[in-house]
Amino acid sequence: MIYSQIVKPTLLLDTHRCKSNIRKMTEKAISQGFEFRPHFKTHQSHIVGSWFREEGIKKITVSSVGMASFFAMNGWDDITVAFPINIRQIEEIKELARTIKLNLLAVDPETIKLLGEELSDEVYIWIKIDVGTHRTGIQPEETLTINRMIEVIDQYPLLSFSGFLGHAGHSYQSHSVKEVERVHLNSVSMMTDLKKIYSTVYPQLKISLGDTPSASMVTDLGAIDEFRPGNFVFYDLQQEEIGSCTLDEIAVAMACPVVAVHPERLQWIIYGGGIHFAKDFLTLKDGKKCFGRWVKPEGSSWSTSETMTGPFIVSLSQEHGVVQCTEQTFRNCKPGDISVWLPVHSCMTADAMGEYLSTEGGKIDHYREHLWT
Amino acid sequence: MIYSQIVKPTLLLDTHRCKSNIRKMTEKAISQGFEFRPHFKTHQSHIVGSWFREEGIKKITVSSVGMASFFAMNGWDDITVAFPINIRQIEEIKELARTIKLNLLAVDPETIKLLGEELSDEVYIWIKIDVGTHRTGIQPEETLTINRMIEVIDQYPLLSFSGFLGHAGHSYQSHSVKEVERVHLNSVSMMTDLKKIYSTVYPQLKISLGDTPSASMVTDLGAIDEFRPGNFVFYDLQQEEIGSCTLDEIAVAMACPVVAVHPERLQWIIYGGGIHFAKDFLTLKDGKKCFGRWVKPEGSSWSTSETMTGPFIVSLSQEHGVVQCTEQTFRNCKPGDISVWLPVHSCMTADAMGEYLSTEGGKIDHYREHLWT
Repeated sequence: MIYSQIVKPTLLLDTHRCKSNIRKMTEKAISQGFEFRPHFKTHQSHIVGSWFREEGIKKITVSSVGMASFFAMNGWDDITVAFPINIRQIEEIKELARTIKLNLLAVDPETIKLLGEELSDEVYIWIKIDVGTHRTGIQPEETLTINRMIEVIDQYPLLSFSGFLGHAGHSYQSHSVKEVERVHLNSVSMMTDLKKIYSTVYPQLKISLGDTPSASMVTDLGAIDEFRPGNFVFYDLQQEEIGSCTLDEIAVAMACPVVAVHPERLQWIIYGGGIHFAKDFLTLKDGKKCFGRWVKPEGSSWSTSETMTGPFIVSLSQEHGVVQCTEQTFRNCKPGDISVWLPVHSCMTADAMGEYLSTEGGKIDHYREHLWT
Repeated sequence: MIYSQIVKPTLLLDTHRCKSNIRKMTEKAISQGFEFRPHFKTHQSHIVGSWFREEGIKKITVSSVGMASFFAMNGWDDITVAFPINIRQIEEIKELARTIKLNLLAVDPETIKLLGEELSDEVYIWIKIDVGTHRTGIQPEETLTINRMIEVIDQYPLLSFSGFLGHAGHSYQSHSVKEVERVHLNSVSMMTDLKKIYSTVYPQLKISLGDTPSASMVTDLGAIDEFRPGNFVFYDLQQEEIGSCTLDEIAVAMACPVVAVHPERLQWIIYGGGIHFAKDFLTLKDGKKCFGRWVKPEGSSWSTSETMTGPFIVSLSQEHGVVQCTEQTFRNCKPGDISVWLPVHSCMTADAMGEYLSTEGGKIDHYREHLWT
């Protein structure tokens, strides 16, 4: 019984649910024949990484150079940093390129040139394409810019052109399988058009996409070479709202002591705030914000069967969470009890907590970035 | 020049601005004759704590038992945990009570009883009063509950009744000196009424309040015994919007590499996301969200003189920040440059970053909570 030992906000990781999520996605990748390069920014953990290894995964994605070094130390030797090249980290990039197959993301020719001039070992370059999210990347029709970038890559023998990489982050705005399918098929079509244009000169070039809603909801992912979803390893309330998962597939939950109850407002106060959950939220039907949804502690894990009417966390300050109950649910907890919560955005909650407690009882590590090591 | 060494998101702490904020608030407390018990949850740092010590501060406030232990280790021996008693941390509470003067916050009689039964050393109890924020605390008119709580305190010789503690967190919704004054005077009036009722039997009892807007904006803080503001040590954009400080008094800023620029949208992409800034935001006049405001790097610090038209960070994902510029400001940065940002909520940003770089060049520590030590 892990709940009896919990004294403060603790991020539980249900090993059973998590391994099942990993297995299902690996099987989908195998059956559809694309390369599965999971994004490790969600879990940021050596132990969770080892569960992917057990399923045969050898190539991974991360979102920072520091995270790449963290996983390289743990034996991962083919890593894509799916974030625009930060040339100020050139020393760490060079060190990584010396030891692993390092794949980087370019969004402009100037940075590729700076990189090319500094390198002593081979680095593989993906050109980031904006498939519609409009965060960053080159518009697919800007072939002049793409041509210039490839020209610069070709000038440096230590740079290799890998292909085009996109991230359909706008699938997160969808609310049905149809919408997610449309976003995904659109992205695939943009990328395959680019592949057609450039593969006559670069026959080895690949196209890479990867978002959890498409990975989870689209039955046939189409003519992609590589897919890089990350969030599916844990899922969360945001993904459940989109339709990527059921509540029962969410593999992490926050355990928080209840420290006060207010019968006149049907509210609990929990020890668990913005520094623990992070502040992503959903908007409920009644207009209230939802920062977490109650689940019932059961054995060393939790059960989602009784969660239909909440309670929900409706606001978070630094250490406090305010929970709105109904007459029915208010009596579920009193001060001193542990309450358990599905998070809205598991990547952010995991990063804020910086460690996990396994439902099997042990500690599970999480990368923590520091300026000084 | 500290900027040349910065390669990734870094929280700068301007020692000059910070020490000036500390000095001004200490002088205000001295001139008005109340006890100043600064809240250390904003900075969570031994080094910043030492600057308070230099100004003669001996008593502090924190927001968790873990944070109390962190500061007790550093020689602070009179600490108030301004958060409802979390009885599950009883072992750490007992350990603290053995070594320091520990002041705790009670919101119900049952928890006081549980505490009383476990203690081996004296602990001082404040009754938390809800002065209008409606997060937690006893309504001031609920004297029956207050009486019951005091009765339980009196049953245990190791429990001492210190008085009434409130936090006017709703002052954060204010936008003028008048509004902040009204909130503060209201709180003071509720608390002095309670003091009148109970001081006939408990002549030593005190009243304690403490929020940064009132501490900064109200000229005469009135008949309070103790004040506990915290955020003023750094201030931030939220406080500037309320009117607690000028832009130039904000003592922390995030330094973030620019990794992409998009002239067609007048946007920059910075390496600096929700895991670095945290996700508190202000709403700008044009309806856009603001997660940070650009300032000009200058020497080893920054200047706020040219920030009238932004740019502003308008969205944050895990590691990316999207910056909206104007035609005028767009050319201020190119990929590879460092951009500097005033944070919206400095407590949350400092906690997310977990360390600081001093504008004098050294590392400044920040408490990091762990489940396992």
